[in-house]
Amino acid sequence: MTATIEVNGRGYRIPQRPVVVICFDGFDPSYLADAAPRGLMPRLVRMMAGGFAATATSAMPSFTNPNNVSIVCGAPPRVHGISGNYWFDRETGRDVMMTDAGPIAAPTILAGLGEAGVAVAAVTAKDKLRRVLGLGLAGAGRSGIAFSAECADTATVGEHGLTAAEALGGRALPDPYSAELSLFVLDAGIDLVARGRARVAYLSLSDYVQHAHAPGAPEADAFLAAVDARIGRLLDLGAVVGVTADHGMTDLALADGRPNVVYLGDLLDARFGVGHARVICPITDPFVRHHGALGGFVRIHLAAGADVEAVRDHVAGLPGVWMALTREEACRRFDLPMAREGDVAVVAVKGVALGMHRGDHRLDDLAGARLRSHGGLAETPVPFVLSHPPAPEPRRAGPLANWDVFDFALNCPAAGEIAS
Amino acid sequence: MTATIEVNGRGYRIPQRPVVVICFDGFDPSYLADAAPRGLMPRLVRMMAGGFAATATSAMPSFTNPNNVSIVCGAPPRVHGISGNYWFDRETGRDVMMTDAGPIAAPTILAGLGEAGVAVAAVTAKDKLRRVLGLGLAGAGRSGIAFSAECADTATVGEHGLTAAEALGGRALPDPYSAELSLFVLDAGIDLVARGRARVAYLSLSDYVQHAHAPGAPEADAFLAAVDARIGRLLDLGAVVGVTADHGMTDLALADGRPNVVYLGDLLDARFGVGHARVICPITDPFVRHHGALGGFVRIHLAAGADVEAVRDHVAGLPGVWMALTREEACRRFDLPMAREGDVAVVAVKGVALGMHRGDHRLDDLAGARLRSHGGLAETPVPFVLSHPPAPEPRRAGPLANWDVFDFALNCPAAGEIAS
Repeated sequence: MTATIEVNGRGYRIPQRPVVVICFDGFDPSYLADAAPRGLMPRLVRMMAGGFAATATSAMPSFTNPNNVSIVCGAPPRVHGISGNYWFDRETGRDVMMTDAGPIAAPTILAGLGEAGVAVAAVTAKDKLRRVLGLGLAGAGRSGIAFSAECADTATVGEHGLTAAEALGGRALPDPYSAELSLFVLDAGIDLVARGRARVAYLSLSDYVQHAHAPGAPEADAFLAAVDARIGRLLDLGAVVGVTADHGMTDLALADGRPNVVYLGDLLDARFGVGHARVICPITDPFVRHHGALGGFVRIHLAAGADVEAVRDHVAGLPGVWMALTREEACRRFDLPMAREGDVAVVAVKGVALGMHRGDHRLDDLAGARLRSHGGLAETPVPFVLSHPPAPEPRRAGPLANWDVFDFALNCPAAGEIAS
Repeated sequence: MTATIEVNGRGYRIPQRPVVVICFDGFDPSYLADAAPRGLMPRLVRMMAGGFAATATSAMPSFTNPNNVSIVCGAPPRVHGISGNYWFDRETGRDVMMTDAGPIAAPTILAGLGEAGVAVAAVTAKDKLRRVLGLGLAGAGRSGIAFSAECADTATVGEHGLTAAEALGGRALPDPYSAELSLFVLDAGIDLVARGRARVAYLSLSDYVQHAHAPGAPEADAFLAAVDARIGRLLDLGAVVGVTADHGMTDLALADGRPNVVYLGDLLDARFGVGHARVICPITDPFVRHHGALGGFVRIHLAAGADVEAVRDHVAGLPGVWMALTREEACRRFDLPMAREGDVAVVAVKGVALGMHRGDHRLDDLAGARLRSHGGLAETPVPFVLSHPPAPEPRRAGPLANWDVFDFALNCPAAGEIAS
């Protein structure tokens, strides 16, 4: 008999062998299409043939925080409340990081498993995300582990569930702007599984490499091969492994390399007057050097008494805009929480970034590199791969979401067996 | 009182002034996003501000013929039967151009207007398409005009409704692989409107420039500006002008410029054995030099007795595949005609082309240029611009389609007024 926990309305079986879910940040399916036939990712390709493979849909907006939280909750942003990295709080009139805005509104699968006595670890690239994913998992009165590669050297048993020495595992602290940040996360996960410290591990990488390098670039190739080798080590340890991504990645540069940006703030000022509309870029986070806070989704907050529908209709007709939706329309269409939605949500067309005002975005930090980013609908398709055949239940209605990955991994028959 | 005709279940008013619809082949919205703020398309931008602008959805697969026919029918491929350029006829076992497969299964708005006594002209870039769009419009017993830039020098009153001299209008016959092919179409349309030979004109361009040049490239800039100047001339003639596209365009090249192609034929042979599955690339047409017959949508035809669902599930998990659908699923989802659908329809992820076998596609014709193409869902968003405010009717349910453009143009209030 296998015990089951229920989290946000779904049942998850307590696994009998290690289960590892990897959120391969920014792993656009075009990388896999190129890498697979060239033999760069032999372990992932073998997983695809022997287990399960599909292209799933990420939560909108296609940013890191909403999707990581959706994955660990097994539920969309409407349920957990994290619908961006950055947020304009209409109550206080201040811009805040959503991860600083208080606890998420839903329990996580990780915390649920920890409460059920399972050894659980969450390792993230960046510390901001660790603080969210670690809620209810590590720290006072909790037995789980949650730490980031960024701050592994300051981990404590009291807050993170392990010492800094254990978190570092003999590795050097990686540069937050490097491929090594993600490889550190995977290596730490391998250690924790190998030493029996984690029965279930969630390993969340950084998209630094994909922001900078297109499919087929030597840097991208080297990174994919390095990730694949580590997936192989987890498989060799007997783990059931699920791999998905928080979002894809699209080249947003013009023929000569300049970014293709539509500055919505300027266009709104010109049409409705300065101060009428405020554009919020929810991709903003403390690490923007590789994308200048430019992505394919923004929110517009309007002055009191504004004609929301007039702004929506105007924005829907602006160049580079795929769709403009009122708060209600956006929440219905994308399963978003009302409290944190703008008055108008704007999705860019493929290949175009939406910005505030010209000058608000530090493009010099790109140092001449092509802008590659995400946030819109063009970056919602993501790989979804499981190392073992999933449960034979009938497919659920609606498209497969990246946040189905814990369901597939924990509930696959192999997870209930002791690895031989 | 204004007379109205009904075509495929929709009513269209007989216009009192010239109405011109331009199918701007391959006009991805990312071109507009870059060109508009740089002032390259002043007339189109003024249309957007004073008339109507949005991003509409093209019919799937996002190829030229299905979308041109959808636009002139005001209806999706399910209604008119043209769901690709190229088609495997399961009755005869032969590959045929859909445009050679007999008349389309629905009447066109152009023919309907012609029958109602309106002077109508269709000018296309390529002659294959002219033959389809001209059905019921020009030729024996018809009063309309239909000719192509490609074959303007062989136009006859009997078949095309005007002489070769009128069709050429003093212009040189353009190279089929050139920007001039499209500009010839627009100039011919301007002539016909100016001379009163057309009250309603449908002008269908070629995507040669966009296949070859990304947004911001000097060649793309020059082309957009040249098209915009011609839109301006049509407006100056008092025309109501609608502009949309048959599909967008996506860069499908890797970091070093090689195309990112998944050869489905090879993968299917490896899994199911040679001869079990036949991959059809419906982008194929007599002009493939600029895309090697590579796009984001293919059809798979299976040997008799094959397990269709097993093939679908296998293909859905292959790298680079966004979705694989059975015939029924594809027709339901994309409003396609059953008779011409494959056993499995396959849509690529953004940035990836689907091919038959390595070697089936002549990539040397690209001459080292980056592959840019279309056919998948990533190329369905297209600009949709009308020079005058549309009818104030409530928005119809569902997303705006490019094939709503004649409805918007003919039924807008300005079309019912005599131009001042």
